[in-house]
Amino acid sequence: MKRTEISQFGEFGLIRHLTADMPVRQPSTEKGVGDDAAVINYGGKKDTRTLVTTDLLLEGVHFNLEYVPLKHLGYKAAVVNFSDIYAMNGTPTQITVSLGVSARFSVEDMEELYSGIRLACERYGVDIVGGDTSASMTGLTISITCLGTADKDEIVYRNGAKANNLICVSGNLGSAYMGLQLLERERIALRGKDTNDAVEAFEGREYLLERQLKPEARRDIVAELRKAGIKPTAMMDVSDGLSSELLHICSQSGTGCAVYEDKIPIDFQAAALAEEMNLNIVTCALNGGEDYELLFTCDLKDYEKLIPIDDIYIVGHITDAAEGCRLIGRNGEQLPLKAQGWQAF
Amino acid sequence: MKRTEISQFGEFGLIRHLTADMPVRQPSTEKGVGDDAAVINYGGKKDTRTLVTTDLLLEGVHFNLEYVPLKHLGYKAAVVNFSDIYAMNGTPTQITVSLGVSARFSVEDMEELYSGIRLACERYGVDIVGGDTSASMTGLTISITCLGTADKDEIVYRNGAKANNLICVSGNLGSAYMGLQLLERERIALRGKDTNDAVEAFEGREYLLERQLKPEARRDIVAELRKAGIKPTAMMDVSDGLSSELLHICSQSGTGCAVYEDKIPIDFQAAALAEEMNLNIVTCALNGGEDYELLFTCDLKDYEKLIPIDDIYIVGHITDAAEGCRLIGRNGEQLPLKAQGWQAF
Repeated sequence: MKRTEISQFGEFGLIRHLTADMPVRQPSTEKGVGDDAAVINYGGKKDTRTLVTTDLLLEGVHFNLEYVPLKHLGYKAAVVNFSDIYAMNGTPTQITVSLGVSARFSVEDMEELYSGIRLACERYGVDIVGGDTSASMTGLTISITCLGTADKDEIVYRNGAKANNLICVSGNLGSAYMGLQLLERERIALRGKDTNDAVEAFEGREYLLERQLKPEARRDIVAELRKAGIKPTAMMDVSDGLSSELLHICSQSGTGCAVYEDKIPIDFQAAALAEEMNLNIVTCALNGGEDYELLFTCDLKDYEKLIPIDDIYIVGHITDAAEGCRLIGRNGEQLPLKAQGWQAF
Repeated sequence: MKRTEISQFGEFGLIRHLTADMPVRQPSTEKGVGDDAAVINYGGKKDTRTLVTTDLLLEGVHFNLEYVPLKHLGYKAAVVNFSDIYAMNGTPTQITVSLGVSARFSVEDMEELYSGIRLACERYGVDIVGGDTSASMTGLTISITCLGTADKDEIVYRNGAKANNLICVSGNLGSAYMGLQLLERERIALRGKDTNDAVEAFEGREYLLERQLKPEARRDIVAELRKAGIKPTAMMDVSDGLSSELLHICSQSGTGCAVYEDKIPIDFQAAALAEEMNLNIVTCALNGGEDYELLFTCDLKDYEKLIPIDDIYIVGHITDAAEGCRLIGRNGEQLPLKAQGWQAF
């Protein structure tokens, strides 16, 4: 029998392959696979739609309990799902939580994890409505599914970008990745040492740790855009890096893009640490992932409305597909955008 | 720091402990944790409610790929979720599928798994609307969340049983467990032997294998009850064994129960194999699990309507809480019902 290695497809390739030509039988299914969340119409009032998204976190792949506190892990596991719902321009409302737990963990450990999930739900006004706890032979497994709502006309998909649209991102990029690099470096350097050494190593870098360990979903940006009367033409959250997400938007919208290296927002702490670690911070911002910032495109006519909003940065513009997806360097040199994303396989 | 072993709580104890006093903030959340599915009101027409349930399957705990074909595994993973929705007297409509996959698996393996999920969705009219594929350091992880719908007045919870209600089950119990015993026995006996030996060992026991490897959700029973004008007072699907499920219904309804040993429906093949393997088939039926039959209670006045329906068996009745949860033996002896369920921790 033929054996094709999963690494040949990659993570996105595999799920795209497995869910290709997925039939739709239910009249309520408006949008199935292929966006941050599915869109379902249960015949609600005022054109309300139900959004659903799901995320699986596996120990040793998505997190390392040597340096991730369980409470932070719970918080992050919930927030990354909320982020997907906000990226559809919706509001998260309910989650279900399934845990696979090996005997290595105690009840108190699971209380810690759950306290983080509960805290995230409290902050974002979301209910925990179900779940499942199961023994695991190996590490910790966390599977969260999030439901949300949005008005039909408010939903923003990935496929609506048009040539000459502005490309915008919130916050800054690469910080979560630099936080991970810092944690990895200190994990190795500090093995068996005093925890005071760790406190010292992290001093002045608390922001990077927070971005990695306790990210927030950009509910505030979604609210600001709505207040300003801007409806993005396409939107995603940045979970796998700017390059990867932009390529998703361009391929689904049938467009190209031009992104300017010197416009990509970078935090000072991230830049300083990258320098120290001999990393190219722009590469980290393009490919690092886990920023959970919002990437969106909007009409050029929204430019004036966009400017007064804090923490939004215009990084480039959408082009015709024929021009390809390009990164424009500081000296005007042009490079093709490439998705690295997570190379876990 | 205090360390409480999860085994002290057990699987149900842990999830109950972690989700105790879960706050409800969203007006749309009508029923959170504690039933086969959560119930959500998105303000739909005709009092439509959204149901949501989730199930996590882990290799080495819930399935053994030495004898479970991937296609069957996919089919079962989907069907057990549909079963939870039917157990609320609802209709499953959409699922999301998250897979954690190690490099041991090929793309073709995942196609096999997905073909089973697709087949189940085709048969039950359900759409696959999302998912996630991730690398795994260890075994295969499958997390499925199912959405469904039901009219508000049709939903059947676990907590509605009343004294003198009839206790009914569909199909028969213990067959899936005996199928598992057979597979386990032959797995050990047949290591390194010819597959023809396996074919012979399974001859005449195909029904037991099917119940274990390719269970169906009892959509037909839900439809028959509706046609007959019977609305159960409480309902669950039998995933952890009759004892465990009945105790859930009784504790949530504040009642006791009396179940008659000689009324529990047992399949002939299951009984014969139990005899051969020196197992007590009633114990298997009470505690074996994975039957995915429906367990429900209904008013005594529905008795006449119930009788003509095929494949439904009255196994006892609900009592006052003071009488406890009892099994009545063939000679009238009374034993307390105990939940064994899955002792995976």
